[in-house]
Amino acid sequence: MNRMRPPGPPGQRGMKSGSPPPQEGPQLKILTEFLPVGTQGHGEMVDVTTQVQSIIKKHGLKFGTVTVFCPGSTGSVTTIEYEPGLKEDFPAAMERLAPSKGQRYKHDDTWHDGNGHSHVRASTVGPSLTVPIAEGKMTLGTWQQIVFVDWDNKPRRRDLVIQLMGTTG
Amino acid sequence: MNRMRPPGPPGQRGMKSGSPPPQEGPQLKILTEFLPVGTQGHGEMVDVTTQVQSIIKKHGLKFGTVTVFCPGSTGSVTTIEYEPGLKEDFPAAMERLAPSKGQRYKHDDTWHDGNGHSHVRASTVGPSLTVPIAEGKMTLGTWQQIVFVDWDNKPRRRDLVIQLMGTTG
Amino acid sequence: MNRMRPPGPPGQRGMKSGSPPPQEGPQLKILTEFLPVGTQGHGEMVDVTTQVQSIIKKHGLKFGTVTVFCPGSTGSVTTIEYEPGLKEDFPAAMERLAPSKGQRYKHDDTWHDGNGHSHVRASTVGPSLTVPIAEGKMTLGTWQQIVFVDWDNKPRRRDLVIQLMGTTG
Repeated sequence: MNRMRPPGPPGQRGMKSGSPPPQEGPQLKILTEFLPVGTQGHGEMVDVTTQVQSIIKKHGLKFGTVTVFCPGSTGSVTTIEYEPGLKEDFPAAMERLAPSKGQRYKHDDTWHDGNGHSHVRASTVGPSLTVPIAEGKMTLGTWQQIVFVDWDNKPRRRDLVIQLMGTTG
Repeated sequence: MNRMRPPGPPGQRGMKSGSPPPQEGPQLKILTEFLPVGTQGHGEMVDVTTQVQSIIKKHGLKFGTVTVFCPGSTGSVTTIEYEPGLKEDFPAAMERLAPSKGQRYKHDDTWHDGNGHSHVRASTVGPSLTVPIAEGKMTLGTWQQIVFVDWDNKPRRRDLVIQLMGTTG
Repeated sequence: MNRMRPPGPPGQRGMKSGSPPPQEGPQLKILTEFLPVGTQGHGEMVDVTTQVQSIIKKHGLKFGTVTVFCPGSTGSVTTIEYEPGLKEDFPAAMERLAPSKGQRYKHDDTWHDGNGHSHVRASTVGPSLTVPIAEGKMTLGTWQQIVFVDWDNKPRRRDLVIQLMGTTG
């Protein structure tokens, strides 16, 4: 179901730092950024790899992890080879698992927003992805991209959470 | 298959601290807590959001991540809009993927415990969820809850692992 | 699709340390190791639990997390009870979701490598698993193993990324 999400306080946009104070040698950094993405829903997929890598570089993170998280219950974060064919094949498989048509959902019986299938797909694939960072780069394969997939049944704007934890050297 | 899990040592219940010693400014904390949950199995879903947020608050964590983990191979941790309809719709989709009836499992041929479908569902959805923490709160959407789902075919009690990593300021 | 992945620099094999300098009390460690695994593909499953636990022990990590990551878009990391029956049952369920035969994939229309189903399965199950570490051990259940599953349609060698974050005491 979709209800209006109250806008966060202005301070929750942009970089947040919870890092310990400067010290000798590599520093631990824990940083939260928000990455806006907009889609038409219905399984539209967005490649966010370049933006996530840019955030890592901007903060000089060398070793650690990045967690990419979808704040919302009808979207997923995973990896895929981002190319036009799979942008159709992956949603097609989810259509077999949780059909958007011809399948009754108790969710829709109650809320009448017609996105029961979106919720089921989102919970199956999951909202969170953690990728290691080594020597300043995510340890992705050459043909592996980080994607956000919006399973909802209408256009949506989301602020993905990009959480960095690691050291600068 | 379910065999009896030996009870952990008493010291493995409650809070564990592996934190560095006090220092000036924000401190890194790494903490492990165990959250007991009981279900009737068969896809029963438990909303643990409030308990996880309470653990974060208790330790004063401001920035970092929390990992919620199911120690066991027939349960999953994910997010969903926790409402009665989806509590039926999500297991119904998993019934299509890994039917509990009318489907033969090699696991059951060997172990005769009838929960081959439970294992398959658990491995598909996954046992682990990592959620960013910013300004003391998990970055969940308004209608997004953290849930444990027990796919096993009988009542079970589990001790979910709640792992905090982050700083207090 | 599979294209050749350029070999990483020699320095990217073995242990990487991004740890802060020595200090009193427990130390934060962030370490990256690479674990080579080879399979015949087609859903072959490899239990890497013992190797991951050995890496944790070698570095003396007591509290924290380990992230096991597949750098590639046709493999997955999850947990399962590693026994012969489920090694067949889990791929069989993925065959229902994303059939290797009798199902058309747009990916294969373009790239003609016949592994569209592999990509879909990998994105569904996911490439990343984060497991808490407490008192030097992963908090796995007794019958729960960490597995890499190669969904590709030919033999592959991968270097799984094992990322440790935590303290030594």
